[in-house]
Amino acid sequence: MADEVVLLDFWPSMFGLRVRIALAEKGVKYEFKEEDLRNKSPLLLQTNPIYKKIPVLIHNGKPVCESAIIVQYIDEVWKDKAPLLPSDPYERAQARFWVDFIDKKIYEASRKVWTTKGEEQEAGKKEFIETLKTLEGQLGDKPYFVGEKFGFVDLCFIPFYCWFYSYETFGKFSIEAECPKLIAWAKRCVQKETVSNALPDEKKVFGFVSELRKVFGVE
Amino acid sequence: MADEVVLLDFWPSMFGLRVRIALAEKGVKYEFKEEDLRNKSPLLLQTNPIYKKIPVLIHNGKPVCESAIIVQYIDEVWKDKAPLLPSDPYERAQARFWVDFIDKKIYEASRKVWTTKGEEQEAGKKEFIETLKTLEGQLGDKPYFVGEKFGFVDLCFIPFYCWFYSYETFGKFSIEAECPKLIAWAKRCVQKETVSNALPDEKKVFGFVSELRKVFGVE
Repeated sequence: MADEVVLLDFWPSMFGLRVRIALAEKGVKYEFKEEDLRNKSPLLLQTNPIYKKIPVLIHNGKPVCESAIIVQYIDEVWKDKAPLLPSDPYERAQARFWVDFIDKKIYEASRKVWTTKGEEQEAGKKEFIETLKTLEGQLGDKPYFVGEKFGFVDLCFIPFYCWFYSYETFGKFSIEAECPKLIAWAKRCVQKETVSNALPDEKKVFGFVSELRKVFGVE
Repeated sequence: MADEVVLLDFWPSMFGLRVRIALAEKGVKYEFKEEDLRNKSPLLLQTNPIYKKIPVLIHNGKPVCESAIIVQYIDEVWKDKAPLLPSDPYERAQARFWVDFIDKKIYEASRKVWTTKGEEQEAGKKEFIETLKTLEGQLGDKPYFVGEKFGFVDLCFIPFYCWFYSYETFGKFSIEAECPKLIAWAKRCVQKETVSNALPDEKKVFGFVSELRKVFGVE
């Protein structure tokens, strides 16, 4: 039986992008269903009743939620091609630790850069740069975060790269000036077709973020 | 070479307890190092520089942080005995989803029950009971959360059981009245020696929580 794979997603989502890149790495064909997040589909509400959030991967009718969990699921199901998590247990734990750090710390700080103003924004920007520097410290002089190949941590963080232009423009700072090694890493990652084909244009993301700022009353 | 396993921990921690139960399930001998959280050891600061939190598992000199990640690490390293995560990728994803739910939702709500007063506490209590009911809904009439055996979700939630008496006393409610199936599940879990030997007495936890409430200025 051929696999039936459906992805409920929303085009600029860094979490949805993780799943799109993972599926591309594995060469899995799937149906992409764009969600209108102001008018969520019955399918989204039914497949993710707890959080009602994208992305949801529906594999042969069974839903998997939460992007980092979906990526691990994809890696375990389609295990013969392009392994994403390292095989060594210690490296796997390190990879999970840094993905968790991205989700808990970097994502939360990144939001403050474009959803707030004044002092709150300055504090958010400071926090965001600090968390990026921490992540860059883990990268060091290695080509990728854990191991020698593009893997779980790279895949889970590279989607943020298409948001960098928005963070920099609204936050009035340069990520490259703060974290040059992180930008060199990102440029290395987008040389991969699975990544460059997935990431939307940074100006298109900027247009989306600008609209959202109006909705949130930041502008 | 024999494994050298050290656990930096603090006795009432539900996160530390997860690791203690996992090591007991696997029959791994280890050195338990109690941390004074008001005066953290240089070893803790050095092995968990990001969060500076217990538990930290140090295996042959290499530290692993974050309890759910540590438990997965233990399951992968000592894989021949007492598997904790299911072998099926879909069940593994489900197990990870519910552990993440416990960490993100239940833990946060549980804290509000004993660290706040008045309306804030009432709201926290309502939220805590709702999240418990959601978790109980996932349990349904099964003996354990995912699969037929005591596993990852059970192990990650059962440490909360020794805090139930404190939640109930400070929140003035009965978890058994709200979630009878959850209590039946907990009683099933504590029949396991690996669990009952690990969990501290609920009255001792209550004494600790009472002291902490004074420190936090709740009482």
